[in-house]
Amino acid sequence: MKRKVRILGTGAYLPEREVSALEIDTRLGTKPGWVEKKSGVLTRRFVGTETAAWMGAKAAEMALEHAKVTLDEIDCIVSASGTVEQAIPCTASLIYHHLDPSHMKIPAFDFNATCLSFVAAFDHLSYLISAGRYQNILLVSSEIASIGLNWKQKESSSLFGDGAAAVVIGPSSKQDASHIMSSRMETYPQGVHTTEIRGGGTKHHPRTYKGEVNWEDFLFDMDGEAVFRLTAKFLPDFVKRLFTDTSKTLQEVDLVIPHQASVMAMKLIQRRLKLTEGQMMMIAPQYGNMIAASIPFALHLAIQSGQLQRDQTSLLLGTSAGLSFGGILFVY
Amino acid sequence: MKRKVRILGTGAYLPEREVSALEIDTRLGTKPGWVEKKSGVLTRRFVGTETAAWMGAKAAEMALEHAKVTLDEIDCIVSASGTVEQAIPCTASLIYHHLDPSHMKIPAFDFNATCLSFVAAFDHLSYLISAGRYQNILLVSSEIASIGLNWKQKESSSLFGDGAAAVVIGPSSKQDASHIMSSRMETYPQGVHTTEIRGGGTKHHPRTYKGEVNWEDFLFDMDGEAVFRLTAKFLPDFVKRLFTDTSKTLQEVDLVIPHQASVMAMKLIQRRLKLTEGQMMMIAPQYGNMIAASIPFALHLAIQSGQLQRDQTSLLLGTSAGLSFGGILFVY
Repeated sequence: MKRKVRILGTGAYLPEREVSALEIDTRLGTKPGWVEKKSGVLTRRFVGTETAAWMGAKAAEMALEHAKVTLDEIDCIVSASGTVEQAIPCTASLIYHHLDPSHMKIPAFDFNATCLSFVAAFDHLSYLISAGRYQNILLVSSEIASIGLNWKQKESSSLFGDGAAAVVIGPSSKQDASHIMSSRMETYPQGVHTTEIRGGGTKHHPRTYKGEVNWEDFLFDMDGEAVFRLTAKFLPDFVKRLFTDTSKTLQEVDLVIPHQASVMAMKLIQRRLKLTEGQMMMIAPQYGNMIAASIPFALHLAIQSGQLQRDQTSLLLGTSAGLSFGGILFVY
Repeated sequence: MKRKVRILGTGAYLPEREVSALEIDTRLGTKPGWVEKKSGVLTRRFVGTETAAWMGAKAAEMALEHAKVTLDEIDCIVSASGTVEQAIPCTASLIYHHLDPSHMKIPAFDFNATCLSFVAAFDHLSYLISAGRYQNILLVSSEIASIGLNWKQKESSSLFGDGAAAVVIGPSSKQDASHIMSSRMETYPQGVHTTEIRGGGTKHHPRTYKGEVNWEDFLFDMDGEAVFRLTAKFLPDFVKRLFTDTSKTLQEVDLVIPHQASVMAMKLIQRRLKLTEGQMMMIAPQYGNMIAASIPFALHLAIQSGQLQRDQTSLLLGTSAGLSFGGILFVY
């Protein structure tokens, strides 16, 4: 399962508009301080005129520069996001168009495992690098959560933020320690309806939107307690299976980058997995839950700040609607 | 690039309700015979109460039976569709839930390249079989086109039909001739806005649907002439590149299964690529354009009818919004 794949560069884009916990309190009609205390998210960004594909292209440009790779050297563009910009075409082709409308021939498609989209795309597409099909893959997660929030669900709507992150992956050379040690994904359909936006697809098509009658069907709906329960029940064994056949233990991992679902969820994970606070990358207080962009965005910050250095070991670990768990253990 | 991957089984589901060209004439207000003459689609199915995930599960059950594989032996479930059932979660987890709500641990995610979703998923995920990551992958394409049609665009709305198809792929044994000879995908972002549904994602969120004011943003919109022009310009060279480093010529392929975009488009492809009528699998007259389900549905019919037999060579070839071209040359 060992794959000689290396993260060549990362990038990110944050919307201009910063939204404080107090502004969310005003919107929700909660007492000042409620959002900060309850969600742990002090601030987050919401898009103004930015679109998902445009933000994704901005993050991608930074990742290409960081990787010292040009667009001509990219041979696959993947939008690894839980949301899309349009119903048709796939977001990856819209990102490609923003990068260079007259460019040609790079395959572009979307990979969707909700909040795990980045982890699942990185995991599965890394095999195409080992096999020599692709040299450099551009993975982009760009999410606009703010448009789909239900402000009547105070707990969930206070958690999210918008933003984009991008990662370029490529082969790692013989003398290079970078590689994927282990990766895994598991879905538990018993949790399929615990996190949903029921509308927007073919079941409740946008044309059936009727304002007051059914608006909640088109907005985010999470049974936080059920997700919490299933995660507590299944995640620890999932992580054990992820480490099977590796020479590492979880305690030896230099940096765990969990999905920034919520501060509470991450504290649960830290406790259940017996991790130290220093091992956990926690950015939700400053950015909120950015859906699939959370993990690559945190990865980008960890690399920029030196919290994750070459030859160190990192674990990307997340949960998503589905209900799914996913993880990648790798040497950066 | 040769991958020892084998199609183990196929399945399909068709909605109950059959819709004739004459019924479409009535709906469009065109003279009886216009739809049949203009689109070449004599009949197609439209869903009644069926949902995409439910249809997908029906097709999957048939594919599993045909492959003589149980759900326990599947280690990856992929929805390879251009449409989704809900905005969240991914359709694959909804299909998994229909197959067995108490089942656990099979990773489920969506792969979206619009009409090329099946071809792109088959192509990319086949590497995980060669690498031994997965033994048996269940690919499902389930599409409800009818809900997103703009009946003011007579040309495009007369083309589509609903339906689902599923394929189980797995490793091919040493003595088995089955393998993928070549595969390729290319995106041309200059055509990104030629085939669209602009609404339904984060750019024009369903909550912004305002009936008469902006309903067309939420429905299918195709500039058929532009797609036709780009396809004529770029497809022949794409196919040449697909055959590079193979021992086959296009004329030696036993069965070409093109995306059933339209009867006219397929005739163009046949002419441009100098294929005989007998080499082309054409099912659009009976089923219409079923988005990403068209190719696996036609593949299923070809295998069931004996038009494609073991050890014969087939080419799956398609175009999609993006604008993208994709193909897989394989020995069945």
